[in-house]
Amino acid sequence: MWVTFMPFGKKQFVNEGDSLLDAAAQAGVMIDGTCAGKGTCGKCKVKVLAGKTSAPDPIERSLLTDAEIRAGYRLACRLRAEDDLSIMVPEINSAASRKKKLMHLPEGFIPKTNIKKYFVEVEQPTVEEQKNDIKRIMESLPKDDYTIDPLLIPAIHDLLEADQKITVTVRENHIIDLEKGDTQRSCYGIALDIGTTTVVAMLWDLNQGKLVDVIAETNPQNVFGADVISRILHSREEPGNLLTLKTKIRDCLNDMIDAFKKNNHIDENHIYDLVVVGNTTMSHLFMGANPEGLAKAPFVPVFCDAVDMPAKDLDIHIHPAANVHLLPNIAGHVGSDITAVLLTTNVANLKGLYLVIDVGTNGEILLSKDGHVMACSTAAGPAFEGAAIHHGMRAASGAIEGVEIKNGEVFLQVIDDQQPIGICGSGLIDALAQMLEAGILDHNGKLATQESAKEKGIHPSLLSRLRNGKYGNEFVLAWGKAGEDIVITQKDIREVQLAKGAIYAGVQLMLKHIGAEAGELEQIILAGAFGNYIKKESALRIGLLPQIEKEKVTSIGNAAGSGACMALLSIYERRRASVEAQRVEHLELAIHPDFQTTFLDAMVFPKQGVR
Amino acid sequence: MWVTFMPFGKKQFVNEGDSLLDAAAQAGVMIDGTCAGKGTCGKCKVKVLAGKTSAPDPIERSLLTDAEIRAGYRLACRLRAEDDLSIMVPEINSAASRKKKLMHLPEGFIPKTNIKKYFVEVEQPTVEEQKNDIKRIMESLPKDDYTIDPLLIPAIHDLLEADQKITVTVRENHIIDLEKGDTQRSCYGIALDIGTTTVVAMLWDLNQGKLVDVIAETNPQNVFGADVISRILHSREEPGNLLTLKTKIRDCLNDMIDAFKKNNHIDENHIYDLVVVGNTTMSHLFMGANPEGLAKAPFVPVFCDAVDMPAKDLDIHIHPAANVHLLPNIAGHVGSDITAVLLTTNVANLKGLYLVIDVGTNGEILLSKDGHVMACSTAAGPAFEGAAIHHGMRAASGAIEGVEIKNGEVFLQVIDDQQPIGICGSGLIDALAQMLEAGILDHNGKLATQESAKEKGIHPSLLSRLRNGKYGNEFVLAWGKAGEDIVITQKDIREVQLAKGAIYAGVQLMLKHIGAEAGELEQIILAGAFGNYIKKESALRIGLLPQIEKEKVTSIGNAAGSGACMALLSIYERRRASVEAQRVEHLELAIHPDFQTTFLDAMVFPKQGVR
Repeated sequence: MWVTFMPFGKKQFVNEGDSLLDAAAQAGVMIDGTCAGKGTCGKCKVKVLAGKTSAPDPIERSLLTDAEIRAGYRLACRLRAEDDLSIMVPEINSAASRKKKLMHLPEGFIPKTNIKKYFVEVEQPTVEEQKNDIKRIMESLPKDDYTIDPLLIPAIHDLLEADQKITVTVRENHIIDLEKGDTQRSCYGIALDIGTTTVVAMLWDLNQGKLVDVIAETNPQNVFGADVISRILHSREEPGNLLTLKTKIRDCLNDMIDAFKKNNHIDENHIYDLVVVGNTTMSHLFMGANPEGLAKAPFVPVFCDAVDMPAKDLDIHIHPAANVHLLPNIAGHVGSDITAVLLTTNVANLKGLYLVIDVGTNGEILLSKDGHVMACSTAAGPAFEGAAIHHGMRAASGAIEGVEIKNGEVFLQVIDDQQPIGICGSGLIDALAQMLEAGILDHNGKLATQESAKEKGIHPSLLSRLRNGKYGNEFVLAWGKAGEDIVITQKDIREVQLAKGAIYAGVQLMLKHIGAEAGELEQIILAGAFGNYIKKESALRIGLLPQIEKEKVTSIGNAAGSGACMALLSIYERRRASVEAQRVEHLELAIHPDFQTTFLDAMVFPKQGVR
Repeated sequence: MWVTFMPFGKKQFVNEGDSLLDAAAQAGVMIDGTCAGKGTCGKCKVKVLAGKTSAPDPIERSLLTDAEIRAGYRLACRLRAEDDLSIMVPEINSAASRKKKLMHLPEGFIPKTNIKKYFVEVEQPTVEEQKNDIKRIMESLPKDDYTIDPLLIPAIHDLLEADQKITVTVRENHIIDLEKGDTQRSCYGIALDIGTTTVVAMLWDLNQGKLVDVIAETNPQNVFGADVISRILHSREEPGNLLTLKTKIRDCLNDMIDAFKKNNHIDENHIYDLVVVGNTTMSHLFMGANPEGLAKAPFVPVFCDAVDMPAKDLDIHIHPAANVHLLPNIAGHVGSDITAVLLTTNVANLKGLYLVIDVGTNGEILLSKDGHVMACSTAAGPAFEGAAIHHGMRAASGAIEGVEIKNGEVFLQVIDDQQPIGICGSGLIDALAQMLEAGILDHNGKLATQESAKEKGIHPSLLSRLRNGKYGNEFVLAWGKAGEDIVITQKDIREVQLAKGAIYAGVQLMLKHIGAEAGELEQIILAGAFGNYIKKESALRIGLLPQIEKEKVTSIGNAAGSGACMALLSIYERRRASVEAQRVEHLELAIHPDFQTTFLDAMVFPKQGVR
């Protein structure tokens, strides 16, 4: 029987009784694990997507949480296939640690959370004053003018009866919890970045403003479509679908909270704040709002403004009175993740012309000129995330992330130094830039044939890599065993042209609307993990970015995630997000009269790179 | 087998197959009904308290709501006893109509509710502006600066998809509901007065500031004790008891809401506001707060301040986002009902000395001198409500509510002009006042014997009414069949002395603390149903009130209920309640060093009434 390892799509034949961990190794798929299959580390978690398996054994039951088992998680070292199987290899550890590295709070950022815990001694009541329990609790706190969550009322008497020393948790001046004993040190919040593909949860210690843990998970809605449009279409198909999409992401969050609890030995009731960012569709699905309007003109969302509501009303397993805050969306396809990018980059408050590009499944662009901020979303498609690319894959173990062609030789940089199993976005851009420089790709996007290359005098060592493959002309990046070479096809190149053309056209039109030229740009800021790993030279070379000096191109990593964290840690940033999101002028490209022409021009590669 | 009719305690023998309606008639218990037992009017509702009965038949099922049947309600005309039975004859109609009569909003009162419904047409979205759904809804409203309940978000898209014309319900500037079509005319609120004995719900049309319906119900917590102290003790007995007490009153409210819906053909989701008053124990039980602290020194409540919370968090079946507002309590035994009395009487804003007495199960007293307001609660006991009085009963059909002794004859005023079955509070006070005047009761509270009366030259017709009964000396108020005379016993007189002594002592001590004399009183205001039916002359004659001119004694009816209605109808009054409740100085009589002496003096009847 066959096991398919997702998200790589690698297939491996296994015999009955074979461990999935061994099968993965045979297929060249790396699965985390430190005990070498002994069943002690519990790190080789995989998720069963389809197919029949052995039942979880006692070791799995002891190392996985109930929520994990319910969600289909298993340990690859214990799991046996009983039929054809499809399993997802989570990138929890590698993706999370990569995300964590990309989490930069701006210099000079001052945490100013509105959650504060006080360990106090409440005075005994006296018959002279007869102060009620709540009054005495409030008087034990440093300020005047507190209010209290009425849901706490039933527990107060017994709490004070047991001990006069209690911990009071206050949000602004509103008491949201009372506990016996001193729990001051345990005070957490979560920033959640819901990507169409990956969901990242970041657990912060609110007392210390310190990042405690990061978990990345595949967005479980992906079984209903890889991009926002297919999820919106799915939500319309049958009455229950919208609720299912909402439930999926909520359950995913609750599972991550469960993992935070387990990994860090904390109490879910000590998580008092949750800030959520995501594109507008993800925000809608998180709230259970019908996203239908986003999929058709006039592309109107149900809501844009920030949302605040108690965790209990969303059935999120943190403190029931914890505030769940969704940063405001800007438009139908410019979501709160871009609002978070506004926070991180601060471009709305800078003098000069700034361009911010966040290349995810869509490409969202911010352009700011002296504080006049415009935004647009381009239908870049998921090419840079590996979709629609023949050997494309996400930036995971085994992905080619860097390419250099020198003296006829192809040098590859592979994530985790593995045998390459595919190519991710940054590798793709590198490859095309290098192929342009090597002369085997022309500025119209045509891949040379062995013959035309020979004619042009291309280095002979490269010629053998040009061939006619199953899908037309292709260039071999890496030679694989059993003919499983990693190639870039002519079609792949067209996909990149479409994607980079969409982004570049958006930039052109925004520049026109704001009345500026690319030459005036102080800086191009690349946001997102992709922006971090991309080689600037390559991005400039293929014309993904306007042709400016590469020194002016900077990358700020996971700006959406960082912005979510800033909003979590600072009530001031949270308010700023709402103010700035409202100031942004949205440019709708889908109906822009000049878009098609600009787009066609933008698909062409520059004849020569910036030197 | 025997049927006991509560709250009168009347017993009647019935044969198998006898209708309870007939049995009630034989027992002299009036049960409402207009179809004379035909089973068409559905008005002869009774509640089965204990015992085995026939199952509800189809007629009962069609005329009673499911909630009523679950709560044990039956139609007396259809119900057959299958064993000894105890049933409660609800005073819904008579009590409610009496309460309704007593509902006086002060002259010049201006309703200013914060609920407003707008029927609007929401503009279509355009691609030029791409205003989101919520923004367009807000722009259809008259003011700026609205917020919206996030729980509405999931329904918005489909609502606007169906029709652009919707009704928007707004509280202050917060949108709490969106509905298709025009529902502006349907906008209700409920004022709830939770008495220890009786719960009264008042349904108001918030658009018109008009009282629509009133329902009175026996407080279902009464099975756990007639007074607040026994309920508090019960709540402590076993872990689940507190929750049961909370559930009882919530279910009672939900049943009343159900009846409002049925009687007035309204939608429960069109009830947007609920204001609750009650004594401090009732407030605590309503919230599920442990009332233990109220039963022992230092008599400290869990909470006093006003509480606001959404109906859904209390599981009350009105609009889920409706605000439930508990008026603030003043102290452990001076509850939000007295705060409501403050609103109705406005004494905190009057120049001069004012005394307000609310005689319920407890006697709460307010004394205001030029805006300095004091409050106390006296353990008057439930004598004036008929408890602990040999033939005492509540002010229901068949109760003697007025007594006059003239020329040796005793004239009785009986509620609903029935054959008397007992004596209620106002009748009791009348009787004692008249007995004092007639000379058969001395100022120490000693009832004359036939012999001593004869010696004093009392009218001979009265002598036969003085006799030695089963419980000592007694005075026959009404001759009954089969020796079932209605009497006032020496013990009854002592009970009244205790009750009136407690109240009068409270007044004396408050006057002393505020630095005033009874003679300075501008007015004595009697609150509560009891205060309304009491004859002022009689109350003065027995020394329940300070001895001032009877013209200065006024009665304002159900001031607690009226105050609750004021707070429901006016957000300004609601805020005033919180401000004024905090200004009230509470005098704790339970530990006052002078209380015992003052109390003993206060038990004596005045030698001569005010002329």
